[in-house]
Amino acid sequence: MKKQSSLTKSATKPDLSLSGIAGQTRVRIERVSPEVDAGYDRPGRYPIKAIIGDRIPVEADIITDGHDVLAARLLYRHGNEKKWQETPLQLLLNDRWAGAFTVEKLGRYQYTIEAWVDHIASWQHEIELKVADGQRISSELLAGAVLVDGMAHRAGSASNADAHDAATLLRVAALFREGSELANNEAYQEAIQVAESEQFLVWAQLYPERQHPARYQYELNVEVDRAAAGFSTWYCLFPRSASRELGPGNVPVHGNFGDVEKLLPRIAGMGFDVLYLPPIHPIGTAHRKGKNNSVTCLPGEPGVPYGIGSAEGGHDAIHAELGTVDEFKHLITEAKNYGIEVAMDLAIQCSPDHPWAKEHPEWFKKRPDGTIQYAENPPKKYQDIYPVYFETADWQNLWLELKRVLLVWAEWGVRIVRVDNPHTKPFEFWEWVIAEVKKQHPDMLFLSEAFTKPKVMQQLAKVGFAHSYTYYTWRTTKAELEQYMTELTAGEMKHYFRPNFWPTTHDINPGVLQSGHEPQFLIRYFLAATLSANYGIYGPSFELMEHVPVPNKEEFLNSEKYEIRHWDWERTNKLTYLISLTNRIRRENPALQQTNNLTFCRIDEEHLTAYLKVTGDNRLLTVVNMDAYNRRAGVVQVPIWQLGIDADQPYTVHDLLTGNKYTWKGEWNFVELDPYIMPMHLFRIE
Amino acid sequence: MKKQSSLTKSATKPDLSLSGIAGQTRVRIERVSPEVDAGYDRPGRYPIKAIIGDRIPVEADIITDGHDVLAARLLYRHGNEKKWQETPLQLLLNDRWAGAFTVEKLGRYQYTIEAWVDHIASWQHEIELKVADGQRISSELLAGAVLVDGMAHRAGSASNADAHDAATLLRVAALFREGSELANNEAYQEAIQVAESEQFLVWAQLYPERQHPARYQYELNVEVDRAAAGFSTWYCLFPRSASRELGPGNVPVHGNFGDVEKLLPRIAGMGFDVLYLPPIHPIGTAHRKGKNNSVTCLPGEPGVPYGIGSAEGGHDAIHAELGTVDEFKHLITEAKNYGIEVAMDLAIQCSPDHPWAKEHPEWFKKRPDGTIQYAENPPKKYQDIYPVYFETADWQNLWLELKRVLLVWAEWGVRIVRVDNPHTKPFEFWEWVIAEVKKQHPDMLFLSEAFTKPKVMQQLAKVGFAHSYTYYTWRTTKAELEQYMTELTAGEMKHYFRPNFWPTTHDINPGVLQSGHEPQFLIRYFLAATLSANYGIYGPSFELMEHVPVPNKEEFLNSEKYEIRHWDWERTNKLTYLISLTNRIRRENPALQQTNNLTFCRIDEEHLTAYLKVTGDNRLLTVVNMDAYNRRAGVVQVPIWQLGIDADQPYTVHDLLTGNKYTWKGEWNFVELDPYIMPMHLFRIE
Repeated sequence: MKKQSSLTKSATKPDLSLSGIAGQTRVRIERVSPEVDAGYDRPGRYPIKAIIGDRIPVEADIITDGHDVLAARLLYRHGNEKKWQETPLQLLLNDRWAGAFTVEKLGRYQYTIEAWVDHIASWQHEIELKVADGQRISSELLAGAVLVDGMAHRAGSASNADAHDAATLLRVAALFREGSELANNEAYQEAIQVAESEQFLVWAQLYPERQHPARYQYELNVEVDRAAAGFSTWYCLFPRSASRELGPGNVPVHGNFGDVEKLLPRIAGMGFDVLYLPPIHPIGTAHRKGKNNSVTCLPGEPGVPYGIGSAEGGHDAIHAELGTVDEFKHLITEAKNYGIEVAMDLAIQCSPDHPWAKEHPEWFKKRPDGTIQYAENPPKKYQDIYPVYFETADWQNLWLELKRVLLVWAEWGVRIVRVDNPHTKPFEFWEWVIAEVKKQHPDMLFLSEAFTKPKVMQQLAKVGFAHSYTYYTWRTTKAELEQYMTELTAGEMKHYFRPNFWPTTHDINPGVLQSGHEPQFLIRYFLAATLSANYGIYGPSFELMEHVPVPNKEEFLNSEKYEIRHWDWERTNKLTYLISLTNRIRRENPALQQTNNLTFCRIDEEHLTAYLKVTGDNRLLTVVNMDAYNRRAGVVQVPIWQLGIDADQPYTVHDLLTGNKYTWKGEWNFVELDPYIMPMHLFRIE
Repeated sequence: MKKQSSLTKSATKPDLSLSGIAGQTRVRIERVSPEVDAGYDRPGRYPIKAIIGDRIPVEADIITDGHDVLAARLLYRHGNEKKWQETPLQLLLNDRWAGAFTVEKLGRYQYTIEAWVDHIASWQHEIELKVADGQRISSELLAGAVLVDGMAHRAGSASNADAHDAATLLRVAALFREGSELANNEAYQEAIQVAESEQFLVWAQLYPERQHPARYQYELNVEVDRAAAGFSTWYCLFPRSASRELGPGNVPVHGNFGDVEKLLPRIAGMGFDVLYLPPIHPIGTAHRKGKNNSVTCLPGEPGVPYGIGSAEGGHDAIHAELGTVDEFKHLITEAKNYGIEVAMDLAIQCSPDHPWAKEHPEWFKKRPDGTIQYAENPPKKYQDIYPVYFETADWQNLWLELKRVLLVWAEWGVRIVRVDNPHTKPFEFWEWVIAEVKKQHPDMLFLSEAFTKPKVMQQLAKVGFAHSYTYYTWRTTKAELEQYMTELTAGEMKHYFRPNFWPTTHDINPGVLQSGHEPQFLIRYFLAATLSANYGIYGPSFELMEHVPVPNKEEFLNSEKYEIRHWDWERTNKLTYLISLTNRIRRENPALQQTNNLTFCRIDEEHLTAYLKVTGDNRLLTVVNMDAYNRRAGVVQVPIWQLGIDADQPYTVHDLLTGNKYTWKGEWNFVELDPYIMPMHLFRIE
């Protein structure tokens, strides 16, 4: 006891170890989901991605000591708002809580969690146990009356004033006090009835004590984009190859924006809604490349659109042969009439003739002899390209200039930008520039054209790219594809990485298509269009089944990167038929407008892949024969338990590609696909 | 170009969006492992746990844009040090890096990661590619000379001065310059040889440029404990039942610390090294419980040691019949001579007679009538116990008093504390009090006696408990046990949760042992002792196979929590033989001194479980028949590929329990276990 008094003495001066501790807070919040990489730099820093109107489900572990009942709220607000909105979290199981909120505006939302020991609900739980055990709870009713007094006070207070509830609660408190008197059995019974009622819990939630709440440390973010971020259908073409004319000697004529406008009916007719153009800026002449990437360029050869910049201007100018800025704006407007958005290409690199090379030599790396170093990817050399040197001490002005370029494009009316090789520029830059541009244009979308290591591609998505190119182009077996789709749609990536599938691009002529075999084109097209809600083709090369490679390379021979091509823009074929049909089906079926709603189905044939996509009551089962040369048959397992179909109840599967309907029953059903007829089914389950 | 000049103008006033950005830093660090719950409150807040001398492996994703080579360092320091120590991280695969450091002192260590673009290694990589491609690299050698100048400068600078290296590097720079001259082919060849050498990379690592490094945001923590945190063997006894005497009428005599000292040879002989005593404080008389938890207490009944506190004192006093503080200290000293530590029991609760109830009534919750509320776990009531009210406004003095109690115990010589029901006191309190006590006594260890929900048990381990009770007591089938061990040793818990396995406790007489069937006791004992490096028994109840329950409960009839028992302290049996033998084997085999070194082996019999523990060249294969009633046989798969044994190479398995040796070959080998003979093998693979 002597020691106790010495304690009393020492306690008069505060103990420093206790400062900053909320000693009465008994709740801890952990493992919040979704939360992307709380790791680097700023905690929980990377936003998850959502589409306007999405419902965002949130979960967390919320725990306390002892046996008390908790209350927890999901807090959320739009970036511009000061005040949090709230919605209750519900206990699932094993200390896991869940709730959700809806994002209704473009831009950033924040969310976090608050939780506290709910003494009112705990009191109710305690008296229920005691009453069930036959104990008389007089003293407990008195304690309850004090809790109800508090609720009545809060019901009557300024922020959530409800005079009716306040008055009712005052009567409840009086009833509890009456009921606590031994003699008054009628009031006692009524008090217990009220105390155990659902209504009592409703009051507890409306007028909570909220004592010593715990707040989750981080305010997590959601980046809300417009619908095209989630569902879009891309068509890439080189505008200089858009002319239907041939010049003297059958030499292709340089196309222009007017020629592109004439192609809009074809592109819209096939069902595309984004028209992506490789760079449209003036092309340099220094070390200009010739046909098939030749280091020597013959007179009159047009150069590579990626060799950006000449005396006529750089990234904020337009190549004169394509047209003027006004003509480009006209194309944008005209395309809009066809339901098509025009996307530009941002390639941060310069021809030696680019104005930046003269005006900002410090933005380029120099050799010991003082000359600017051209691009290399050893042992390859790109003498026609100066890479921009992002480690420059003048990085601030460089960043500001690149932002200015994007704002100029936005002023022209562009709201989608495909970025060339973003993985060779710093993450920090992308994170800043995308956020800066979106501050002024929250509807702006960026597509990352990075074909590189997985974690680098992920990082680019995390720092702000709305869409990302993928490894789809090289995932050609059933096992590869199923594994890759699972990684994209079922792991952490689903929160921030939106795949955009391309069977070919103007840079990639993949081995699987170099045969030119028509069924293979049908298969590679159809998988892209039904697995991923965002996909694109490089046209008209793809739909005309262009396939001859540079020998031993995954590149196109006579690539229009190096020359103007004259295409047959009238031609249609089985593939254009499938494209038009599939894009119409995509527009009509919400299940194809999402990517993460995917489940693979068991099918006992190694060349057949089957997958289900469900959105609301729209349920699509796709079966594809990945063997482009042989008829394949097998039985597919329809997850009827997931679809709420009884085992003995027949159901109709309606092939949206052929119009055929089949009556199926039970889980396992037979399918057979001949690649020379149509290597796929796209069933709507009805 | 006009826009460019407008840019130049605007750039003269700084853009606020750029402030705070390290624009030249191109590296990002993510997914550091180990890192426990970067979630709550303070980032990366919970330390991982280690034993002094442990090597801590650390991994991280480290990425950059482009194709440059990175350098990365693991930084670490002991809590008292200002300066970081460093060790390089190595690239594993796919942007994953790994390194390790050793913890050599008790207390907290911090670790973090720094990484940067290594321009020197990148340069070497680039010239290797060019030289292999047959390119002449004159200009590159000049650039290299500048890099080598920098290394020479750093080699000669104050912090890592090495005059020899500095001079050598100056010669290398000169050689590179010579070699860059077209005429000098000999110097050129030599320059390339040096540039491509291993030594060049060694210099790059010794004298790095370290430009624009990225630092991982968090300084993560390791809590380093002494060896007993990782490997300990506990024996629990009630000191009041320690007397070998019987009083008149065969009434048990109240034992004391002297009687406990007389039991030390038996306890040490069985191989235990921690002697844990339930509370030894004065016991209250108000509402004292009688035999078998009776609410009425007959005159002379001793009460429950958990009804702490009387006029004689509280948690800092000792029950007079057990002895004095000096006698307790004598027991501690005497036990130490037998290699045994004495552990005390912290139960934060009071008898109504506890001095705190009078001196600090604000530390207890009051009913509306002003009386202190006794403990309840509705519908159960514990009228002899006042719980402490941790939400009290006076929480600071309460915490300080509890810390003072622990420091008094430490002064007596106690360094292990078993905490009773820590899950009914706030996490915040435990985190503070354990850290505070360990500041003065870094060798202090706390065992959490929480049998509650998984996440609450995990949280207690996170906030500082060195050991935790577990669900082992109820994991009685092969499948349950394998699943539970995997959760403990292969998931996140392995970093912070150290299990302590108990087949019974003085509170728990589990169903599986209520038969009193000897083989069942052997099995439950042996699994605990070989699965977990920390385990304990409640003696002599357990080794004497006490098993009669309170009907329909998992409690002991005639529990010595409520009465003094007279035990036969001389008795030995098959179980005491197995205990003594197993504890000797544990001391002699390092593989049994760790818990996370566990792998289960396939065995085609549902009652046989087999597991391998490997530490260095100590390789133990345990096989247990979990059917206590029937002989079981099967073939066990020895993971010879993991052990480096060839398929056709015979090897010896030596059963350390019987001394028998068997020659095995290949993966699959036959075992047969009769529970009535010995239901387990403990093979050393030789």
